[in-house]
Amino acid sequence: MCWSQRGGPVTHVFRGTFIHSTPETALQVLEDALLGVDTAGKFFMPGMIDTHIHASQYSYAGTALDMPLLQWLNTYTFPVESHFKDLEFAKKVYTQVVKRTLRNGTTTACYFATIHTDASLLLGQIANDFGQRALVGKVCMDRNNSVKHYRETVQESVDETHRFIKELLNKKYPLVKPVVTPRFAPSCTEALLEQLGTIAKNNNLHIQSHISENIDELKLVKELFPDSETYTDIYHKFNLLTDKTIMAHGCHLSDKELTVFRETGTSLSHCPNSNVSLCSGILDARNVLNHKVKLGLGTDVAGGYSSSILDAVRRTLDASKVLTIQNPQHQTLTFEEVFRLATLGGSQALSLDDQIGNFEIGKDFDALRVNVAARGGPIDLVQFDHLTSYSLFPPICPLKGDDRNIVEVFVAGRKVVPCEDLALE
Amino acid sequence: MCWSQRGGPVTHVFRGTFIHSTPETALQVLEDALLGVDTAGKFFMPGMIDTHIHASQYSYAGTALDMPLLQWLNTYTFPVESHFKDLEFAKKVYTQVVKRTLRNGTTTACYFATIHTDASLLLGQIANDFGQRALVGKVCMDRNNSVKHYRETVQESVDETHRFIKELLNKKYPLVKPVVTPRFAPSCTEALLEQLGTIAKNNNLHIQSHISENIDELKLVKELFPDSETYTDIYHKFNLLTDKTIMAHGCHLSDKELTVFRETGTSLSHCPNSNVSLCSGILDARNVLNHKVKLGLGTDVAGGYSSSILDAVRRTLDASKVLTIQNPQHQTLTFEEVFRLATLGGSQALSLDDQIGNFEIGKDFDALRVNVAARGGPIDLVQFDHLTSYSLFPPICPLKGDDRNIVEVFVAGRKVVPCEDLALE
Ligand SMILES: [Zn+2]
Ligand SMILES: [Zn+2]
Repeated sequence: MCWSQRGGPVTHVFRGTFIHSTPETALQVLEDALLGVDTAGKFFMPGMIDTHIHASQYSYAGTALDMPLLQWLNTYTFPVESHFKDLEFAKKVYTQVVKRTLRNGTTTACYFATIHTDASLLLGQIANDFGQRALVGKVCMDRNNSVKHYRETVQESVDETHRFIKELLNKKYPLVKPVVTPRFAPSCTEALLEQLGTIAKNNNLHIQSHISENIDELKLVKELFPDSETYTDIYHKFNLLTDKTIMAHGCHLSDKELTVFRETGTSLSHCPNSNVSLCSGILDARNVLNHKVKLGLGTDVAGGYSSSILDAVRRTLDASKVLTIQNPQHQTLTFEEVFRLATLGGSQALSLDDQIGNFEIGKDFDALRVNVAARGGPIDLVQFDHLTSYSLFPPICPLKGDDRNIVEVFVAGRKVVPCEDLALE
Repeated sequence: MCWSQRGGPVTHVFRGTFIHSTPETALQVLEDALLGVDTAGKFFMPGMIDTHIHASQYSYAGTALDMPLLQWLNTYTFPVESHFKDLEFAKKVYTQVVKRTLRNGTTTACYFATIHTDASLLLGQIANDFGQRALVGKVCMDRNNSVKHYRETVQESVDETHRFIKELLNKKYPLVKPVVTPRFAPSCTEALLEQLGTIAKNNNLHIQSHISENIDELKLVKELFPDSETYTDIYHKFNLLTDKTIMAHGCHLSDKELTVFRETGTSLSHCPNSNVSLCSGILDARNVLNHKVKLGLGTDVAGGYSSSILDAVRRTLDASKVLTIQNPQHQTLTFEEVFRLATLGGSQALSLDDQIGNFEIGKDFDALRVNVAARGGPIDLVQFDHLTSYSLFPPICPLKGDDRNIVEVFVAGRKVVPCEDLALE
């Protein structure tokens, strides 16, 4: 297959087996017949898309998962995020998270940064330098925060959001865009939510936030917004539900709320590692799909402890199987469906499916070269006669594979892993 | 700290931070104060113990998880296991599984092989050659098997079990023992169960089997054993519940059955990856511990797709958190408790806690040297001032670590990873 870099001539020809998803087919295999058996265990797949990750929280991922959401935010998250005022610290962590997620096969990430505009701009620069496609959000929050130096007034939040958007767009990074980011309703006054909805609308920008993650959060939201019938209504009222909005979690959304999601084109980011790790709840992803709501996968670092979308694939399968254990009538998600969520689903959720998500002609080449049997990797292959490259894929690689099986990563045709720019190493 | 190899003089002195469990303390840190901050992220922990793994099924781990237990056995498991009549094939797979599990930090494994005596003996030899501590079981099954060439009569099963035990014991491998292995009640007639109970008793041997994994299995057991009140009663009746018995799963055991487990000294192997992957059920490990039943962790390859006990640690936490999501009164297992299950708990479950499981004086040195920040590994460290080697451990390493963080593995004082015997490579 041939791909051109954005707008340029054909610069690369890739040969081999391609596996991807289409809206009609959860898993489609495009075999290179000429290569025959040599392709066993080797194939290209679309780059994976992390639709919800807190870049700043990468600094403590894998620790501090011993309490539920609201206490967790005040005890660990806000104190750590407040450190990102320090640009040296921010540079260190943001460089780690961009490099690590690229190596894990995340070609596109939708990031929460912190309230700090300059550090958030730095995250955009680092994603650009390492070649990751990214949406970057300066976090907005003007209430319910116990940490002294990690607060904004409405005016500060609005002014800094304007500055963040303007300065990031002025950089003209080809693959990095700003995303309007109210942390979540309990952290934002109505005045702030209203202004953020207006900013997004006036600039035709993406929006991201959290919704309906945890039962105590729902109670708090009811207290804080007594006039709104549902959690969804709050965001809807302030024009924050659009076809460029992605909301994380949604574990406890009603069918009625899911209908509003579909009608507005709002998508959900399913973050099963986080949902289990913080004992938040289990999203019924099948029900979301049945409601024709766009759905992608997210790591939600550091509520989720893994920064790998392969982990999100495994946890999505687990969550669906747990629902089947609870109710044998539940229609478990298949491997193929979850593969699609990690790639094409993510691109749809971020309204980037005109550019990425699969190997359709005309899209950018965001791809992973996978070797199931990579030397030194986690998978031992036993060659049964009946196994072909296709039958090896689902589900050995998502279940047992890790970054060692992802031997090359391409974003918009540029090879970003292994990193060829020594200046970046 | 100093350890001698079994019976010999002191041959190694290991220096550093040691982390282990005791019956009283889920996680105890023995710091080497002299090494100070240099130990951050580096420590020794006891080797991990896989109390339930099907060595033969390693050949298809990570595939074929799309149906529940009973269909899964007939469709995938029995046909694959029948291939182990071929000793060349057996050698290849058993070498892979022993090397891989050692590399994953499994210093002791309790293996199911297949019905084939010679291949099962080969597994014992391979474990011995690579230096893994192992219980090895030739599988016994004389009914309910649809695969033509994978069957025994009662007499064949009994005779071959005798031969297996005798030949394996004659090898005098210091760390490898036979374990009497009725596959599970639905695969065995009462006549076979009775004889296996007698063989175990007469030879004072370990016993392993499966119990109460899946709801359909429970129904089948009720049909096959109409005279037994509970699943547990069947094994009990035939003297198969002893203080050297380990039963896998037990997801659906009643409190009354757990009491029989405690009274007989029988232990359970908790295999959460398998239980979720096959939609079997979720073991309430807290309830098992409250009943003072001995409990270890198992991978149950290939019902579980991962051969790593680190994965079992993660899944055990997940399973406990899922129970908390379902019932907020559930007392979630802590990281420290699960660490204990993976080490000391496993040794108790296998009745080997007089020899292994922690760093108590007098036990063998089965240990892992861990480097949280191993170069090329999956963990990026951010040095916060308040983090010490101890606070780094729980839970960064079990949650985000993999075999790359396990830089050396020792069994009975012998370094088995990296493998120093080139003849074995
Ligand atoms: Zn989040
Ligand atoms: Zn088993």
